[in-house]
Amino acid sequence: MQLHFLGTGAGMPSKERNTSALMVKLLDEIGEMWLFDCGEATQHQILHSSLKPRKVTKIFITHLHGDHIFGLPGFLSSRSFQGGDEPLTIFGPAGLQQWVEQTFALSKTHLTYPLQFVEVQEGVIYEDAHFTVRAGELRHVVPCFGYRIEQKELPGELLMEKVQALGVPKGPLLGQLKRGHNIELENGIIIKATDVVAPPKKGFTLTILGDTKYCEEAITLAQQADIVIHEATFDGETTELAANYGHSTNVEAAMVAKRAGVKFLLLNHLSARFLPHDLPTFLAQAQEVFSQTLLTYDQTVFTWSNDKLD
Amino acid sequence: MQLHFLGTGAGMPSKERNTSALMVKLLDEIGEMWLFDCGEATQHQILHSSLKPRKVTKIFITHLHGDHIFGLPGFLSSRSFQGGDEPLTIFGPAGLQQWVEQTFALSKTHLTYPLQFVEVQEGVIYEDAHFTVRAGELRHVVPCFGYRIEQKELPGELLMEKVQALGVPKGPLLGQLKRGHNIELENGIIIKATDVVAPPKKGFTLTILGDTKYCEEAITLAQQADIVIHEATFDGETTELAANYGHSTNVEAAMVAKRAGVKFLLLNHLSARFLPHDLPTFLAQAQEVFSQTLLTYDQTVFTWSNDKLD
Repeated sequence: MQLHFLGTGAGMPSKERNTSALMVKLLDEIGEMWLFDCGEATQHQILHSSLKPRKVTKIFITHLHGDHIFGLPGFLSSRSFQGGDEPLTIFGPAGLQQWVEQTFALSKTHLTYPLQFVEVQEGVIYEDAHFTVRAGELRHVVPCFGYRIEQKELPGELLMEKVQALGVPKGPLLGQLKRGHNIELENGIIIKATDVVAPPKKGFTLTILGDTKYCEEAITLAQQADIVIHEATFDGETTELAANYGHSTNVEAAMVAKRAGVKFLLLNHLSARFLPHDLPTFLAQAQEVFSQTLLTYDQTVFTWSNDKLD
Repeated sequence: MQLHFLGTGAGMPSKERNTSALMVKLLDEIGEMWLFDCGEATQHQILHSSLKPRKVTKIFITHLHGDHIFGLPGFLSSRSFQGGDEPLTIFGPAGLQQWVEQTFALSKTHLTYPLQFVEVQEGVIYEDAHFTVRAGELRHVVPCFGYRIEQKELPGELLMEKVQALGVPKGPLLGQLKRGHNIELENGIIIKATDVVAPPKKGFTLTILGDTKYCEEAITLAQQADIVIHEATFDGETTELAANYGHSTNVEAAMVAKRAGVKFLLLNHLSARFLPHDLPTFLAQAQEVFSQTLLTYDQTVFTWSNDKLD
């Protein structure tokens, strides 16, 4: 799983940070990508990457502020222009579907692929053999959701040294064992799957939060997650401003990560007021509360592998 | 007057050319800028220039295809964010106002400045002491307008050598002469304004055409203009395709310029199919028909001064 940040700014684009968009690459897992939020010029950011719009099968929108959705019509129509024909599902708050349809009716946009909408409510909004996605409402100035993506348990690996030592021939019997079925060899020996298959591996849990003031709901969504992505529009010196505008500070984000017991915190949605030379201090303030904190930048990619984030 | 091209591509953004937007800088004339079309990420293009959104007082939209309007909500709200409080008027086809209002209602966008809409019909759509703007409907797959901006006659300059020789004292009498009034000096001598003021100077005429197939309406709008900006989505080898999609070729644009008797033709709205190394031929094909043809590029600025375009 990789996290490719396309827009990590707040409110308005700046030269350094575009408005919100994050591509979650699940190519190794399911051959798909999921996009979280789609600020204006997300498709432009994608142009300057190796990401392929047709690989995006789901889009999750946290809330309907312009800096999170104004890139959606352009992204959707360019995906069509580029010959995308795979279905796409958009998960978002009430009102989103109507706006996209109004926009396409006005601009006479016709997509080459089926587009489906799911109106997000609190609770499980998506589940398949590999993932469960749960939504929870945060505390912003408009309805805003956070998403918790839980990868299901991964089947344990077949321990090849053991099966070879026990004389299991190559072929379909190995598949039986891998799927958890006991087998009987030609010589009558019974081999238990549990003896030759490693225990199942825990999948990852990734929590992507929309704009929010410091709130318990964020902690619930992030509980024991491997990675939480939290907005940090303000810093410790502007805590009151943050709450008034329905936003969080770097320190509050770190408190959420600490209280939720997560492994890694990524600070996102940074105000353009913070200049590059402010960022070391901005990060250090959060790390005082939660040491495993990292900053996001446009076009940076984090890879999750073997319980590590690089 | 300067023409600052912000987006010169067709349909979809590419790395080289963004979707449509052209800033007409009338800073010397009236201290304002007028924006023609506003494709997605127009505000991002502006970020990489010295243009100030608050100086934009009018936006003219040629038609409602996404590559000409999807940047409008973002541009309008960022102009507000940046403290713009000057009124803004948007001229565009029927349906535009409703969509902008729906978009702002959905995204809870509140502007800090008065926003007014004018639904464009054929004929004069705007007139003040300095300019007349006329709209004409072109031939595209959706209703699409071209705009002819005529600067009114500029008052002739006061010939300082002559007034000094005639003994006119510095002060308010000079202003009287400049405004065309005859004056009487203290010694009884009458001085006629026509004797000391140069004849009025012709203003410029600029024709900005939206997407269109080759058509007579374009020629009418461009008649005797100083500059015509014409789309050239296709080239001579794809003339039939151009007409089918409601677009023009480089050669057809040149024919419009020639038949309208203009001074300069700027080719705009180029397909991403034309790579940089194709462009010299693309330009030469048009110049064979109309020699004073130039190509537009994103972030290029043309200055109109003393009947010359640089």
